[in-house]
Amino acid sequence: MGAHSQSDVVVVGAGLAGLMAARVLRRAGRSVQVVEARDRVGGRTFTRPFAGDVVDVGGTWVGPTQTRVLALAQELGIATDPQRAEGKSLMQVGERMRAYRGTIPALNVIALIELQRAIGRIDRMARQVPAHSPQSAPRARAWDSLTVGAYVDAEVRTRGARDTIAGAVRAIFSSEPREVSLLYFLWYVRCAGGIMPLCEVEGGAQERRLRGGAQQLSERLAEGLDERLALGRPVRAISQDDAGVRVHTEAGTFEGRRLIVAVPPHLCARIDWQPAMPAVRDQLCQRMPIGASIKVITAYQRPFWRDAGYSGEAVCNRGPVSLVFDVGRAEGGPGLLMSFMLGDAARAMTDRGPAAREAAVVRALEGLFGPPAGAPEAVIEHDWMADPWARGCSVGIGTAGALTTCGDAVRAPVGRIHFAGTETATRWAGFMDGALESGERAAQEVLDAL
Amino acid sequence: MGAHSQSDVVVVGAGLAGLMAARVLRRAGRSVQVVEARDRVGGRTFTRPFAGDVVDVGGTWVGPTQTRVLALAQELGIATDPQRAEGKSLMQVGERMRAYRGTIPALNVIALIELQRAIGRIDRMARQVPAHSPQSAPRARAWDSLTVGAYVDAEVRTRGARDTIAGAVRAIFSSEPREVSLLYFLWYVRCAGGIMPLCEVEGGAQERRLRGGAQQLSERLAEGLDERLALGRPVRAISQDDAGVRVHTEAGTFEGRRLIVAVPPHLCARIDWQPAMPAVRDQLCQRMPIGASIKVITAYQRPFWRDAGYSGEAVCNRGPVSLVFDVGRAEGGPGLLMSFMLGDAARAMTDRGPAAREAAVVRALEGLFGPPAGAPEAVIEHDWMADPWARGCSVGIGTAGALTTCGDAVRAPVGRIHFAGTETATRWAGFMDGALESGERAAQEVLDAL
Repeated sequence: MGAHSQSDVVVVGAGLAGLMAARVLRRAGRSVQVVEARDRVGGRTFTRPFAGDVVDVGGTWVGPTQTRVLALAQELGIATDPQRAEGKSLMQVGERMRAYRGTIPALNVIALIELQRAIGRIDRMARQVPAHSPQSAPRARAWDSLTVGAYVDAEVRTRGARDTIAGAVRAIFSSEPREVSLLYFLWYVRCAGGIMPLCEVEGGAQERRLRGGAQQLSERLAEGLDERLALGRPVRAISQDDAGVRVHTEAGTFEGRRLIVAVPPHLCARIDWQPAMPAVRDQLCQRMPIGASIKVITAYQRPFWRDAGYSGEAVCNRGPVSLVFDVGRAEGGPGLLMSFMLGDAARAMTDRGPAAREAAVVRALEGLFGPPAGAPEAVIEHDWMADPWARGCSVGIGTAGALTTCGDAVRAPVGRIHFAGTETATRWAGFMDGALESGERAAQEVLDAL
Repeated sequence: MGAHSQSDVVVVGAGLAGLMAARVLRRAGRSVQVVEARDRVGGRTFTRPFAGDVVDVGGTWVGPTQTRVLALAQELGIATDPQRAEGKSLMQVGERMRAYRGTIPALNVIALIELQRAIGRIDRMARQVPAHSPQSAPRARAWDSLTVGAYVDAEVRTRGARDTIAGAVRAIFSSEPREVSLLYFLWYVRCAGGIMPLCEVEGGAQERRLRGGAQQLSERLAEGLDERLALGRPVRAISQDDAGVRVHTEAGTFEGRRLIVAVPPHLCARIDWQPAMPAVRDQLCQRMPIGASIKVITAYQRPFWRDAGYSGEAVCNRGPVSLVFDVGRAEGGPGLLMSFMLGDAARAMTDRGPAAREAAVVRALEGLFGPPAGAPEAVIEHDWMADPWARGCSVGIGTAGALTTCGDAVRAPVGRIHFAGTETATRWAGFMDGALESGERAAQEVLDAL
C-alpha cells in the first residue's frame, strides 16, 4: 500500500506522551502524524461510562507535585476532586486484618519503628540515584544486583513492616517485590520525590482524581488533530534511512523526517525495525517487562462502608484483591469501590474470565466491608494483561541488572528515532505527569534536530 | 498471498529443537513444514569456513553426559575431537592475572576453600530444584528474589572466589551475575547435573567439539526436508482456531493442524499471535531476555602458546575479552584462539564495528599470551546481538522473579501450539542436548494430540 501521509514528524502511540509531543511540535509549526494501534486515544488511561457517571479503569490519580499534569488539567478546564481518605483503612498483616488511619498501618511498635526506619533509609538511598541516569549512582551495581524483595528480606525483620512495603511495591508497580530491581525502585522513588509522595493520598500521588476521567486529557490533546490522528493502526514495522522514517501499518505507510516512539519498552521490542535497533537498545527492551494488573470497580447504592467508619481503602498481601479504594464522590452519589488485582494475584486470575474474577472480588470485598459489599449493583472490569496493546500495566519495570547493563539506551535517540513514554521520564516516571514530561522532552529533541 | 502448504504440523524455527521435532514427527508418518527466518538452518549453531578449516561461531562443545547430542552425532557419523586442556590456564583476579591448571584457578588457600564450599552449597541447593518445575522448589521464592550476583556478594567474601564464580556465570549465560535469578541458575545447574559438569572441560560441557562443526547436526537433520523446509521466511503472525493453525510470512502462509514454536522466549514475544497469547505466557516472554555474546576467532600459523606451557584458556572479569579457548587441533594445524566477549563486555563493543572489536581482542590476547598473539593471520567474528533472529546469545535467562511468577507457562501448550527450544528442556537446558530433548518432547505432545 502506498504512503498515507507525509509529515515532519510521525508519533507512534496516542497516549499522553505521544499526544503531548504532537502538541509541542504543532505549536512549533511542525506537521505531525500520530499513529495509534487502539481505536481510542489515552493509552494506559481509559475512562468508561459506569453507574451513571464515568470511572477510570486505567491511570486515575494525580498528586500535588505533579505540576505538568495539574497545569494541563487546569488549562483544559478539567477539575479535580479530592480522593476521600477519612476513616479506618484495612491492611492484611500475615493472617490478620488490621484497621488504621492515615498512610502508615497500625503495626506493633517494633514494626512501626522498623518501617519508619526503612522508609528513611530508602529515601536516603534514593537521593543518591540521579534521575537522569540511575546507572551512575555510586552504588548502582550493588543495588541493581538486588531486587526489592531481596532487600526487604535482608533488611526488614518484622512481618508487619515487610508486608507493608510489599503492599506498597505491589501498588506502585503492579509487580511482586522480587520482580523489581532495587535500583529501579530507588530511581522511581527519586523521580517521585520520596516514598511518601508515592504512597500517600493527602500530599501524595493519590490525592486527587480528574473529574470526568483521566482519559479526557488525551481526548482534549487530540482535538484538532483530525486526520493527523490515525486510530486502529497497529504499527508492524518502522524503517529509517538518510531521507527519513517510514511507519508501516496494514492500512498504509506514514512518512516523516523524524519519529517519536511513545510506547513502553516491552512493546517497542515487538516492532520490526529496519535497520534493526542497536543491540543495547534491544537488550534493554528485553529487560523491561510490564506489571500485571486487573481493575474491578463495583457500584453500590451508597457508600455503606463510610457509615461504619471505613475509608474503603484496603491493602491485602494475598489475592484475589491486592488494593481497594473508595472512588465515589465525597458527598452523595453511589458507592464505588475500585479493586486492584496486582502481580501474582492478577496473573492467577487473568485466564479465569470476567465472571469468575468479579465473583472473587465481590467475595473478597464482603470479607473486608461486610455482607452489603457482596451485592453490588453494577461491576466493570479491565484486564490490562489481556489488552493486546498493553500486555500488562501499570508501568514497565527494570528487572535486576537492566539499568546497569542497558540503562544508557533508555532515552538515547537512534538516528531519526526518539523515545518518549512515562518510563523515560525523570520526574514522576510511571505516572501521567512523567508521560507528559517525556513527550515534551522528545518533542524538543526533534525540534532541535529538524 | 494464498496458502503455501498444508501439513499436519508446522514447525517455526530450524534450529536443533525444531529440526529434531520435525524428524520425530516425520518418522511417525506425519507431514511437517519447517519455517525459518534465516537463510540457513542451525539457529544458535553456525559453522563458518575459516583458516583452511571450519570454525563454530555459535554453539561449539558437547560433554559426556549430553547423551542425546552424542547419540545423534554418532548416528550421523559426525566425529568428535577432544578439547585440548593441557597446560596453564589464566584467570584475572582483581588486577592480577594468575596461571593455574585444571578447572579450579590457583587462588590463595582461603579463597580456594571458600570457592569449593560455595560450589558444594550451590550443588546442594540445585538438587532441591525440580528440573520440570523450578518454581516448585521449597525455597523457590526466596531464591528467585535473589540474583546470582546478590547471592555471591552476600555469601562469598574472598575476591578470588567471587571473581571465579562471576567468570563462570558469564561463561554459562553470556550475562552478568546480577542479571540472572539465583533460582534460574540453580535450575540450570540441576539440568546439567552440577556446577562442575557445566564448567569443566574434561568430564564437562566443554569436553569435545564436533569435527566439521556443530551446524552439521542441523544440516544433516534437515536433509530430505527439501521443500518442506522454507528458509528466509520470517514469521510475522500466527493464528489458530478450531480448524488449525496458520503461520503468516511475507512470502505466503503455512497451514497445519498443530504448531511447534522452536524459538527462544524473547523472540516468541515478537510474533503477532491471533488470538493473543495467554497473559502469563506473554509476561513470561517479557521476563526471559537473552544474554550478550560476541565471538572472535583468531588464527595463527601455529599454537605458539602451547610451547610456553599455556592451555590457551583464559577467564577475564573485565573486557574486552571475557573468555578464551584454544580450538585448534590437538596436533598440527594452525593455532586457533576462540575469544568471547560476554555480558557487559559484549554490550560495550557491539556498536563499535568489527574492525575495532578485532583490534581490541588482539590487544587483549597479546596481553595474555605475548606479542605473537598480536599478529593473527586471520580473524573471524560473529556478534549475536546484531543478528536480527537472535538479538543475543547464548541462552534465554530467567530474570529475578520470572520463574516464580510465570514459570508454569514455560512449556504449557496453548491450544494447538506447543513450545520447544533449549530453554524449555529439563536436561542440559541451554545446550544443544537440551534443544534436542525439547524437540522430542514437543513432537511427542503433538503426536499424542493429533
